[in-house]
Amino acid sequence: MESAIPKLLQCPRARARRVPDDYTPPYPAWCARHRQSVKQVVMAYFGVQSKGPDPQGFLSWIADEFRREGGPGHWDRARYSDEAGYDTVISIAYWDDPRTFDAWMDRPGFREWWESDARPSESLGYFREIIRPRIERFETLFSTPDKPEGVAVLAGAMSGELQEHAYWGGARDRIPLSQTDALEPAGRPMRRLADGRRIVVQPHGNLCLIRSGQDWTETTGDERRMYLSDMEPVLREGMNYLRDQGLPIGCYANRYMRIVDEQGRETEKSFGMSYFRGLSELERWAESHPTHVAIFGTFMRIVQQLNFQLKLRLYHEVTVAAADEQSFEYINCHDQTGMLRAAT
Amino acid sequence: MESAIPKLLQCPRARARRVPDDYTPPYPAWCARHRQSVKQVVMAYFGVQSKGPDPQGFLSWIADEFRREGGPGHWDRARYSDEAGYDTVISIAYWDDPRTFDAWMDRPGFREWWESDARPSESLGYFREIIRPRIERFETLFSTPDKPEGVAVLAGAMSGELQEHAYWGGARDRIPLSQTDALEPAGRPMRRLADGRRIVVQPHGNLCLIRSGQDWTETTGDERRMYLSDMEPVLREGMNYLRDQGLPIGCYANRYMRIVDEQGRETEKSFGMSYFRGLSELERWAESHPTHVAIFGTFMRIVQQLNFQLKLRLYHEVTVAAADEQSFEYINCHDQTGMLRAAT
Repeated sequence: MESAIPKLLQCPRARARRVPDDYTPPYPAWCARHRQSVKQVVMAYFGVQSKGPDPQGFLSWIADEFRREGGPGHWDRARYSDEAGYDTVISIAYWDDPRTFDAWMDRPGFREWWESDARPSESLGYFREIIRPRIERFETLFSTPDKPEGVAVLAGAMSGELQEHAYWGGARDRIPLSQTDALEPAGRPMRRLADGRRIVVQPHGNLCLIRSGQDWTETTGDERRMYLSDMEPVLREGMNYLRDQGLPIGCYANRYMRIVDEQGRETEKSFGMSYFRGLSELERWAESHPTHVAIFGTFMRIVQQLNFQLKLRLYHEVTVAAADEQSFEYINCHDQTGMLRAAT
Repeated sequence: MESAIPKLLQCPRARARRVPDDYTPPYPAWCARHRQSVKQVVMAYFGVQSKGPDPQGFLSWIADEFRREGGPGHWDRARYSDEAGYDTVISIAYWDDPRTFDAWMDRPGFREWWESDARPSESLGYFREIIRPRIERFETLFSTPDKPEGVAVLAGAMSGELQEHAYWGGARDRIPLSQTDALEPAGRPMRRLADGRRIVVQPHGNLCLIRSGQDWTETTGDERRMYLSDMEPVLREGMNYLRDQGLPIGCYANRYMRIVDEQGRETEKSFGMSYFRGLSELERWAESHPTHVAIFGTFMRIVQQLNFQLKLRLYHEVTVAAADEQSFEYINCHDQTGMLRAAT
C-alpha cells in the first residue's frame, strides 16, 4: 500500500491526515502517476451551446484542431442539456505541458477564430474553461487500475493500492498541497468582465473543480440493474440538485454529462463536472447531502455484496486551482452558462 | 455560533479542524456545558446479566445505593438481550467529581458486596465498567437544547448553537484534546487478569466509548412512522453488525439498549453504547458502514423534509479515555461479556 502523494511531493505535514498511519482501507483504489518531469497539466473544456442549430461545424473544427501539432495528449467529448434547456457539447482536452498547450492555442488559425467578433453563427454560444493546475494541486482516484480516464490518460501509469481513500476527506488528503495548506478560497469574489457578447470571468484562488465519472459498459446482470435502477436515479437527483440549487451551498456550476463518441453517439459512460467555491464546499456537499450520502451508502453496500468484484468503473479528478491557473471565457452564451451564474 | 470546545480549554491548534473558520452547519446542535470547577467526570455502568433468574434484588440494591450520600448526580437504566442470549440490565450513573464517586464506592457496604466471593446468586453475573474522563477527553452533542441525557444532565447548562457538527469528523473536532493530540490507541492490547470467577480487564490508552441515543417519545404522524419504519430497522441492523461482527473493525463491544424505568417498563428511548479500540475506528465505522451511512442519509433527508423541526431527539457522548481513566471488572459473567470478548 502506498500514499497517494508521490514521494517527490511528500513533505513534513503541517496539517495531519484524517486517518492514522496504520489505516487500511476496506477495498482497493488507485491513482494516476505522472512522469516526474510533469509539473503542471492543462484541463481545457471547450463548449458549444445551442437551442436548435447544429453545432457540428464547431465540433468538427475543434476535433481537427486537437489533431494538429501540439494538440492534447487525450481528449473526449460529452453532452448534456443545461439548466436553461440548451444542448451543450463540451470537448475536453488534456495536456501535461502548459507550454505546448499555450503554443497550440496561440496558432493564428485557432486564436483568430476564437478572438473574432464576427461569429460564424450568432445562434450558437461558445465557451472555454481552462484549468491548469500544478501537480501538487490535483488528485485522481480510480476503482480499477487498468482503465484511466480524463487527465490520468496522460499519466501512462497507475499507482499501487492507495492508503488515503474510502473515508470522507480522502480527496483532500490525496492533494499534495494539503500537507501544508488549508486550500481555502482566496481573494475577491468572481467578477465578470464583458466586451459585448464576450464575457471573461475573473476567478478567485483555490476554486475547486471535480470531474467524477462512471463507466457501466462492462456491467451485467444484478450489478447492471443495481447501477441503473438504484444508483443512477439517485446520482441524477443529486446532480440536478447541484445544478439547480447548488449556488447557496457554494456550487458555482454543475453538469451531469454523457460521454459521446465523435459521431455524437452516447456511450455507457457519464460524469458530473462541478465547480465549487472551494474544496470545503465540495466536501460538505458530498458528505451531507442526502443524495450523495445515499450514493455512497449504496456503493459501499454493492461493493460488499459483490465482494469488491465490481465491473462498474468509477473515477474522479479533483483540482484546487490557484487564481492564475484558471481562465473562463464565454461568447454568445446565455446568462446562466457555467461560471456566469456565480460571477457578478 | 460558538465552538464546542469551551473557551477555557481552547489552545493553539497543532492539529487543524476539518472545517474552515467560516463553516456554518446546515442545522443547529448543542452540547453540554459543565461548570468551570468540573475537571473530570465519572461514567459508571453497573450491569447484571442472567438467563432466567430475576435480577430485581440487585437492581433494587444498586438503586438504593445510588440514593445514598455521595451518589450520582444522575442515573438511568437500560436493558437488552446480549449476543449470548443473556438478559442484561445496566444501571448507568454519572458523577462530576471523582472524589465523591471514590468515596461513594469505598463505603464498606458497597465495597464488601462487590468484593465478596460468596455471591448472593451464582446464577447472576455482575459487572462494572467505569470510565472517568478528564473534561478535555469527551464531548456531547444534542439535537435539541432542552432535554439533556447521560453525562449532560450533570452539566446543568447547554451551549449556544455549535459550529463543529454535521460533518464527518465533528466528534473529534469537539473533543478538546484533539487540538493537540491524534488520540490514537496507546499501550499493549487489553489483557484479562482473572481471580476465579472475577475477571479484571487491563485497558489500553485512548479507548473510545460512545453512548448514542434517540428519544422518540414526542414524535407523531409522519415523523414517528419515518423513525420506526425507516430509521430504527436500519439502526438495529447496524447495531447488530457491530455486536456480532465488530471485533475485526475495532469495535470491542456494542450494546443496543432500551431505557427502562425503575419498574422495568420500556420507555421510548434507546441508545447504542459501544467500546471501540480508538476514535479512528469509530469514525471509520460511522462513515463507511452501509447501515450507518444509511442512517445518516435518512436523518439528513428527514430533517430537511421536516424543515429541521424534529420531535425526534438525538444525542451522544463520545469519550477517549486514558488508560488510568478506565476500570473493567466482571464477576460470574459469561466469556463474551463486554470487554471480555476483546481482551486476551
